[in-house]
Amino acid sequence: MQQADVIVIGGSAAGLTAAITARRHYSDKKILLVREEKQVLIPCGIPYIFGTVGSPQKNLIGDAVLEKNQIELLLAQATGLDREARVLHTTAGDVGYERLILATGSRPAMPPITGFALDGVYAVVKDVDYLDKLQSRLETAHDVVVIGGGFIGIEFADEIQKSGDHKVTVVEILPYCLALAYDQEFCIEMEEVLKSRGVHIRTSSRVDRIEGDGKVERVVLSDGSEIKADVVILGIGAIANVDLARAAGLRIGLTGGIAVDRTMQTSDQNIYACGDCAEKISFFGGKPSPLKLASIATSEARIAGANLFGIRRENIGTVGVWATAVGHHALATAGLTEAMAQERGYDVVAITIEGPNRHPGLMPGAAMTRVKLVFERNSGIILGGQAMGGPAAGEIINAISACVQNRMTAEDIAMFQVGTHPALTASPIAYHMVNAAEMALQEMR
Amino acid sequence: MQQADVIVIGGSAAGLTAAITARRHYSDKKILLVREEKQVLIPCGIPYIFGTVGSPQKNLIGDAVLEKNQIELLLAQATGLDREARVLHTTAGDVGYERLILATGSRPAMPPITGFALDGVYAVVKDVDYLDKLQSRLETAHDVVVIGGGFIGIEFADEIQKSGDHKVTVVEILPYCLALAYDQEFCIEMEEVLKSRGVHIRTSSRVDRIEGDGKVERVVLSDGSEIKADVVILGIGAIANVDLARAAGLRIGLTGGIAVDRTMQTSDQNIYACGDCAEKISFFGGKPSPLKLASIATSEARIAGANLFGIRRENIGTVGVWATAVGHHALATAGLTEAMAQERGYDVVAITIEGPNRHPGLMPGAAMTRVKLVFERNSGIILGGQAMGGPAAGEIINAISACVQNRMTAEDIAMFQVGTHPALTASPIAYHMVNAAEMALQEMR
Repeated sequence: MQQADVIVIGGSAAGLTAAITARRHYSDKKILLVREEKQVLIPCGIPYIFGTVGSPQKNLIGDAVLEKNQIELLLAQATGLDREARVLHTTAGDVGYERLILATGSRPAMPPITGFALDGVYAVVKDVDYLDKLQSRLETAHDVVVIGGGFIGIEFADEIQKSGDHKVTVVEILPYCLALAYDQEFCIEMEEVLKSRGVHIRTSSRVDRIEGDGKVERVVLSDGSEIKADVVILGIGAIANVDLARAAGLRIGLTGGIAVDRTMQTSDQNIYACGDCAEKISFFGGKPSPLKLASIATSEARIAGANLFGIRRENIGTVGVWATAVGHHALATAGLTEAMAQERGYDVVAITIEGPNRHPGLMPGAAMTRVKLVFERNSGIILGGQAMGGPAAGEIINAISACVQNRMTAEDIAMFQVGTHPALTASPIAYHMVNAAEMALQEMR
Repeated sequence: MQQADVIVIGGSAAGLTAAITARRHYSDKKILLVREEKQVLIPCGIPYIFGTVGSPQKNLIGDAVLEKNQIELLLAQATGLDREARVLHTTAGDVGYERLILATGSRPAMPPITGFALDGVYAVVKDVDYLDKLQSRLETAHDVVVIGGGFIGIEFADEIQKSGDHKVTVVEILPYCLALAYDQEFCIEMEEVLKSRGVHIRTSSRVDRIEGDGKVERVVLSDGSEIKADVVILGIGAIANVDLARAAGLRIGLTGGIAVDRTMQTSDQNIYACGDCAEKISFFGGKPSPLKLASIATSEARIAGANLFGIRRENIGTVGVWATAVGHHALATAGLTEAMAQERGYDVVAITIEGPNRHPGLMPGAAMTRVKLVFERNSGIILGGQAMGGPAAGEIINAISACVQNRMTAEDIAMFQVGTHPALTASPIAYHMVNAAEMALQEMR
């Protein structure tokens, strides 16, 4: 029987990062990565295959990084786990281990409706062959319906819209697209951007069923209206893949992920979990968090990988930092939105600052940029922020994220020493984040 | 005699921000801003007048912000200060005050050489008429010599180069341009970028004298070589303007700025100072800091303005965060470079990570981006960082700045929860700052 010091199951963002981290911290250990997929897709890049990037093959994480880090690869399916004997069963035979990391990811959530098995209905499956088929199918499709207006849904919609002669319609059950990630005013603006690019949007709309004769022909909404469809894409979220963990008797968490403590250890001291398959705890109040993001996965993986043979890192909880972009319009968020914070019972002060991201505002590349910060009124601690504007909003949010992770107060942020430049950022007098903090202090009195 | 609760002397980044901050914190006070200039230039935008922006008039901070914040304006020169009586003397009469903020800025440093009074020699003076004259002069000039290869010098050089038929030469006394701001390898790359755009660079070169018959004709270096010059621009730095403070008997600091404590109070309890005129203390070790930046000025102004009638803010010291850009090539720094840290006696670990700022790397807008982080070896605390790449490097540095200001360790940053997106940032697996921290930890063992 083969033997490894460390087995990592899963080769996407979490698994790969966990394996690399394990290598960095434990240079003498034999590390084996077990995965099913011959080729691994860059998960966040999947929507961009259809318009910008061109094909799944151009959106791959190569295996060179494994070789470079002396990580062995076993292409096989994990079929069972003997925790007592510390043996992993796979379709390519058994492998013994000292420590094991579960990075088994997630599967597309399926809506409780009929018709999703029809030909022409696709989920967002992280598989090259599957996405190849979707891409060829789209070549001959005209009417495309995307069910789910979250960030994956709108990214697919915009990419498909711009890739050819398509009529793309997004159907969202909530009053706004992106409503689980951003405050309303940002969602409305992003919907306007999508519409101006030709994407059709149906919000507050529940899908009742998908219909067709063998292959999909239409999507029927609860109000009886129908949308013609040659292809339907389901983008309504993902559920943790915990089959192996559950079968092995590992504890499962409240939201259906593998239960882990702050060190990313499961209920078995020798087994860690990270990424979409692992249960998450919010940075805010410690409640279970439903978020599943590649950037959360990699952070957890860096904790799991470092802790394998001696605990040194603890997870501060899931902050939730991410971004999306439609054309040149970027939208990013960190932590709680105003609505989320209020729902959770925080007494909040929220301030939005709008201004150009260059100074003077006629410098090339200038885009109107809006930053909203949300503070807890009594402590002054920042709970979250949102940034909308040009591409740099994707990094502005990382500065805000740093403030959140350090539990900075509005007073701290008002004194924040920023770097600025006419061709790169807002002016130091009007820097969004700092001014938002200063304005918030006035409302806290 | 006129009477104000608060007088601010100076209308640029520091003065304006101090006055606005005072208004925000003290809504019922009468605030008077005293300045000499009819029109105020955006200081960092000055180099961009000559190529990108087009004229000084397009690079102004308007006075609307004063009106909006109910700040009165007195266009006059401050000529003296009676601290006992709390009266400011100006060319437009006396004004009494309760609190006073000195934001008198800086003046161009003049080199200890002959010839700088010749016609055609210009300093970087923040004055519309002066810059108008320089701009018209440049229209008929072919050979332009910029003395000083710091960030102002190279920005002027590149802008003038691209504005017409010019041969522009930068003369720098140090071995590299930008050597006081960035580590060598970044300076070398930036010099290459400048050269590829047609700017001539003479490093390790001391100017001996400027020569001409009434008007400038040539710059003579210490090695005897000559550079033809129709216009010479001096960009060798700035010295604090402390005339008024010194005449009033206020304490002056070791580097020549007005001495202030961490609350930005001068040796007179009723007088505060901020910006280029104020002495600075480094965030690192508390030594005097020679830095003069608009973004430091605004941070200090927010401390001074808030503290006028009750102390609530303390300056953590000057971190030094700034950026420059040549074409699409941005370069930014926060805190100490590797060389600076070593000079100051720190035992450092420095790691550079290079990779695209998009994922996959063929996404539009992708630029190779390099991030270098510098850590103290024993504590693991981050001392500084540098970022080079596309325009978003100007905001990447603000995320790094937040890490520095919070004295995060490499361990903290290795677990940092980043926001990422294919069209906006590096991948979460390869995010520069996080990987640099992880690599640094390996070297700390």
